[in-house]
Amino acid sequence: MKNGEPLLPVELRLPAPGSRTRVRELHRQLKAAIIGGRLAPGLRLPATRTLAASLGVGRNTVIAVYDLLLGEGYIEAVRGSGHRVAALAAARRALTAPRSAAETPASEQRLAPLYRDLVGGLDREQAKGLTYDFRLGVPEKASIHFDVWRRLSARSLRSLSKRDAGYGPPRGQPALRAAISAHVSLTRAVACGADDVLVTAGARQAFDLLARVLVTPGKSVVAVEHPGYPPARIAFEAAGARIAAVPVDDEGLVVEKLPRSARVVCVTPSHQFPLGCVLSPHRRVALLEFAARQGAVIVEDDYDGEFLYDGRVLDALQTRDRTGSVFFVGTFSKSLFPALRLGFVVAPPWAMLPLVVAKERADSHCNLLAQETLAAFIDEGHLARHVRKMSALYAQRREVLLQRLELDFASWLMPLTSTAGLHLAARAQSGVDVERLVERARRAGIGVSSIADYGTGATLPRGLLFGFGAIDAARIGPGLARLRALVT
Amino acid sequence: MKNGEPLLPVELRLPAPGSRTRVRELHRQLKAAIIGGRLAPGLRLPATRTLAASLGVGRNTVIAVYDLLLGEGYIEAVRGSGHRVAALAAARRALTAPRSAAETPASEQRLAPLYRDLVGGLDREQAKGLTYDFRLGVPEKASIHFDVWRRLSARSLRSLSKRDAGYGPPRGQPALRAAISAHVSLTRAVACGADDVLVTAGARQAFDLLARVLVTPGKSVVAVEHPGYPPARIAFEAAGARIAAVPVDDEGLVVEKLPRSARVVCVTPSHQFPLGCVLSPHRRVALLEFAARQGAVIVEDDYDGEFLYDGRVLDALQTRDRTGSVFFVGTFSKSLFPALRLGFVVAPPWAMLPLVVAKERADSHCNLLAQETLAAFIDEGHLARHVRKMSALYAQRREVLLQRLELDFASWLMPLTSTAGLHLAARAQSGVDVERLVERARRAGIGVSSIADYGTGATLPRGLLFGFGAIDAARIGPGLARLRALVT
Repeated sequence: MKNGEPLLPVELRLPAPGSRTRVRELHRQLKAAIIGGRLAPGLRLPATRTLAASLGVGRNTVIAVYDLLLGEGYIEAVRGSGHRVAALAAARRALTAPRSAAETPASEQRLAPLYRDLVGGLDREQAKGLTYDFRLGVPEKASIHFDVWRRLSARSLRSLSKRDAGYGPPRGQPALRAAISAHVSLTRAVACGADDVLVTAGARQAFDLLARVLVTPGKSVVAVEHPGYPPARIAFEAAGARIAAVPVDDEGLVVEKLPRSARVVCVTPSHQFPLGCVLSPHRRVALLEFAARQGAVIVEDDYDGEFLYDGRVLDALQTRDRTGSVFFVGTFSKSLFPALRLGFVVAPPWAMLPLVVAKERADSHCNLLAQETLAAFIDEGHLARHVRKMSALYAQRREVLLQRLELDFASWLMPLTSTAGLHLAARAQSGVDVERLVERARRAGIGVSSIADYGTGATLPRGLLFGFGAIDAARIGPGLARLRALVT
Repeated sequence: MKNGEPLLPVELRLPAPGSRTRVRELHRQLKAAIIGGRLAPGLRLPATRTLAASLGVGRNTVIAVYDLLLGEGYIEAVRGSGHRVAALAAARRALTAPRSAAETPASEQRLAPLYRDLVGGLDREQAKGLTYDFRLGVPEKASIHFDVWRRLSARSLRSLSKRDAGYGPPRGQPALRAAISAHVSLTRAVACGADDVLVTAGARQAFDLLARVLVTPGKSVVAVEHPGYPPARIAFEAAGARIAAVPVDDEGLVVEKLPRSARVVCVTPSHQFPLGCVLSPHRRVALLEFAARQGAVIVEDDYDGEFLYDGRVLDALQTRDRTGSVFFVGTFSKSLFPALRLGFVVAPPWAMLPLVVAKERADSHCNLLAQETLAAFIDEGHLARHVRKMSALYAQRREVLLQRLELDFASWLMPLTSTAGLHLAARAQSGVDVERLVERARRAGIGVSSIADYGTGATLPRGLLFGFGAIDAARIGPGLARLRALVT
């Protein structure tokens, strides 16, 4: 193992020393990492002694956990000594044994904890119990013109059924690719034509396809923001990338801290996830120079950058790119609704062919009706209108949120500057036990998150995250009042 | 390299000795394999001398091809000696150079040859020029009740917009999973409940997810039928599996020929692709015993088994499975229409959790409107009615096809027995130059395929493939008459 390289490509978070739950926690987290593919089959596990030391737990704890995983077939003993991650097919016998009845996903509830391990934050099931929904990345659905959507959907279906309901091109329907290129050229000054656009099943699939195309398993170093957006990291991890977590400050990704070996840099320039800051102009220049100099590529994740609360708009990195280094990833899950499952990548010409092949291999193409309907929705100007309308609505919610924070939480929380998106981050003053507060809040039906859900370590700012995509302005005040009562 | 192991995990097909196109062909095929991921980044290429010998070409041919690939950045020299496949990101500089203008997918036409390399047969673009469309796996769309579909779609959208248009469960909408389990229990006697069903973006994604979950890169041996269905093989290849091509005879997969090391066996029991035969009862028993004995799993691809032309119906392998070894893969691309992009896996409980996580990672879930609409379509009995109706229609086309073959082609083609599906295979008598005939036929607008499109080698039967999903009964006669005229 190289110096400074972590023992395992996953962060393990254990309860405080003396806690009785450490074996269970370590077992759960390792198992989730194996099932989730973050610990790949064949990966050699550190020696019990080494892992114990690095985690600051007793060696017996690690021995017990390895033994549990052995029994369940998730890991296997290596001839000679040590352990490695087993292929899930190998785990089969153990998994089919009665012991593993609990593994059967009899219900979404059973799966919920795993999603949490995968993507952090509050999962769907937990959300159901919320009185005040401050989840991240959940847009307002009330104001969508579903009547318009219905009309366009019916029309698209009529023409599809007449024309052809066969296989479509893997890159996406020409009409939708044209509409997307026009839309992002207008809203984000992204320079592209229809042929530069690949339609994907949400941003999630965009990351998955990019990881397949850009990563050499075990070799490629992929830099991600820390704290950052888990699905992007997970996609590259699963493709076998070596992840380099690069810190973020109030100017966004600290470009100077990028390892020279980084071949891919994942970044959220318009609204850093989750801290919310904007990548500063000189950092943008530095990042593009880094890519050009090192022959690296940039994955620009513009997940909610369309909602802007500030006159001054910075160009997308893609707009400034002169070396074909930037992949611009967008989604309609935030600007319209997640159920649509449509997103896109604007890719440089050199990468389009392999991306299209990866898409063809992954699922051939996206649902044609959804694509045609969205194309019409964009062409007739409904998307632009919707985004304008929602920006105003979100801006108002954001104002209320900022005011309440200033009035009721001045001595506990300090909102971080951000000029876009669907959520706010607030740094906690020393003395606030953030994790405890978040846990109590959730039990009280207040769906706030902790920055620590998206990273670990001393460098990480401690604080809370407030999404305002899913909560009415009128409910923000009462929600924060109730939260306020929990701060002790 | 182990004995008997092929030099490369791809089949290379070169023109006859003395042909001038061998460098170009070898270059094109290797490049397609690299871009398509069949030759994975980091893979060590055989020495020029070795590869030349195995292909029966001059060493200079291979040297020239390696040099071309080096120049384009698709492969890189290994310190010391030899070459390995480069990551595409590494190929970037070379690809962005002017030379590679041709790489830019300015049009679907540009991509077409690559699809052909990927999935064999006729691609979408070629299909457009066809007068007589005998393509495989393309269903009849004329008889779909799109009016019904439109009504159910509008209704589903109305309830979705009221209820929730947010993220759905990655396993698929509960209503659709219930509908699918009821449908396959009825039509294919597949024993399952809603919780055993994972909704996928077509069978294509089912193979992709299964490959991610079941394969240990570089280790797992996956057996596929030869000849067989390319997308299944490609998915497992791309996941790093070692592919074992197992021959097929008139009883289907020759189970005795399965390598003991096989951990996954991909098979099309109800209608072998492309030969059309049915996996015989004793082979089915033998295959299930192999799986139980070796701890292997079976991927049962039931792509068009719903269309049956014979009273006697054999149970699905899944029905007989007692050891949780079988994954039953189905699609609605054949029974309804491909544009829908919906399929499913019926998985044993032990494997559901990792599959769901893989789905969550790949694209979160499938479009909710399509899922809800299909659920209603199935629940109200429209799918069952449609399948019944189409079976009658296809049976008639099949009859016409068989009659014409018997009358006009008796001395040239011998249809292979099959009792299901959307296409027929016919063995060519010696003396018929199949490849030449297929090429001339396509130039004449007759979209037939060659068995050789789906495999290679001496063991492979020579013959033609006739799809009847996309051609009216009335046009089959004229199409075959025109084909007949080309046989010389």
